[in-house]
Amino acid sequence: MTNQNQLAVKSVLDAWHFRVKAVNEILNKLTDEQLQHEISPGRNRGIYLLGHLSAVHDRMLPLLNFEQQMYPQLDEPFINQPDKAVAELPSANELRIAWSTINSKLTEHFNELQVDEWFQKHSNVSVEDFAKEPHRNRLSIIISRTGHLASHQGQLVLLK
Amino acid sequence: MTNQNQLAVKSVLDAWHFRVKAVNEILNKLTDEQLQHEISPGRNRGIYLLGHLSAVHDRMLPLLNFEQQMYPQLDEPFINQPDKAVAELPSANELRIAWSTINSKLTEHFNELQVDEWFQKHSNVSVEDFAKEPHRNRLSIIISRTGHLASHQGQLVLLK
Repeated sequence: MTNQNQLAVKSVLDAWHFRVKAVNEILNKLTDEQLQHEISPGRNRGIYLLGHLSAVHDRMLPLLNFEQQMYPQLDEPFINQPDKAVAELPSANELRIAWSTINSKLTEHFNELQVDEWFQKHSNVSVEDFAKEPHRNRLSIIISRTGHLASHQGQLVLLK
Repeated sequence: MTNQNQLAVKSVLDAWHFRVKAVNEILNKLTDEQLQHEISPGRNRGIYLLGHLSAVHDRMLPLLNFEQQMYPQLDEPFINQPDKAVAELPSANELRIAWSTINSKLTEHFNELQVDEWFQKHSNVSVEDFAKEPHRNRLSIIISRTGHLASHQGQLVLLK
């Protein structure tokens, strides 16, 4: 019989991979030109959302105690700044490569973790706080980032 | 020390309640008139998304083996049919009430469940299949429906 913690981790990771796949399917159908469009008049462009998601996922590497960010240069234009505030953005092609590279790297690390290790603290909580709030673990990061990804998936699909 | 299964259930439920609250905050800022707008030109209207989310959450009541649907009449216009296919929809006010009532009812049931009960099968999987695929449990429904809600949250926010 499978343990409940193991089942829960599987369901959380399945949901993550499901969303990444769904977003990839949308991105694969969008041309670079379509990515330059706004999801709705006056709103974020597809290219910004692709950069934003890439940056947020890149930051999961240190947040989950895996390794340093691979693309720290994405933080300023895609996290600190809103869309259209930065004149020179990376090309759609560069961002597609970053997005794919970051997610592959995350998957590599995910596959190396034992179930217990998902319940270890993430890097944004102190040892003291984690002792009191043990739900602030790696698994909870995947849950919240899956929601973040889903919310932007609902927007990217509008570009088709 | 808290068990890992208990921590995982808490994180999943926290994410659910976080999304419901975020959607409620968006809905509270939207007028009934704004809900009649499309999220992007030619796309679903806010009123349709509110009805759709209400119907999907209502169907969670039997899916999670809690009780019968409270608003089965929402299935046809908001799940079986796309937006603008049905001429007469419930009013925004009726849908706001349904949405709030359904989520409160779900919360009531959630609060009554013990951790172990989240790992019981949902109603859409057979006993035989569940024996082979024990991840098809109630908890996995919350995880996938939280993602569904998040994707439409990303759209509703465009109406503001």
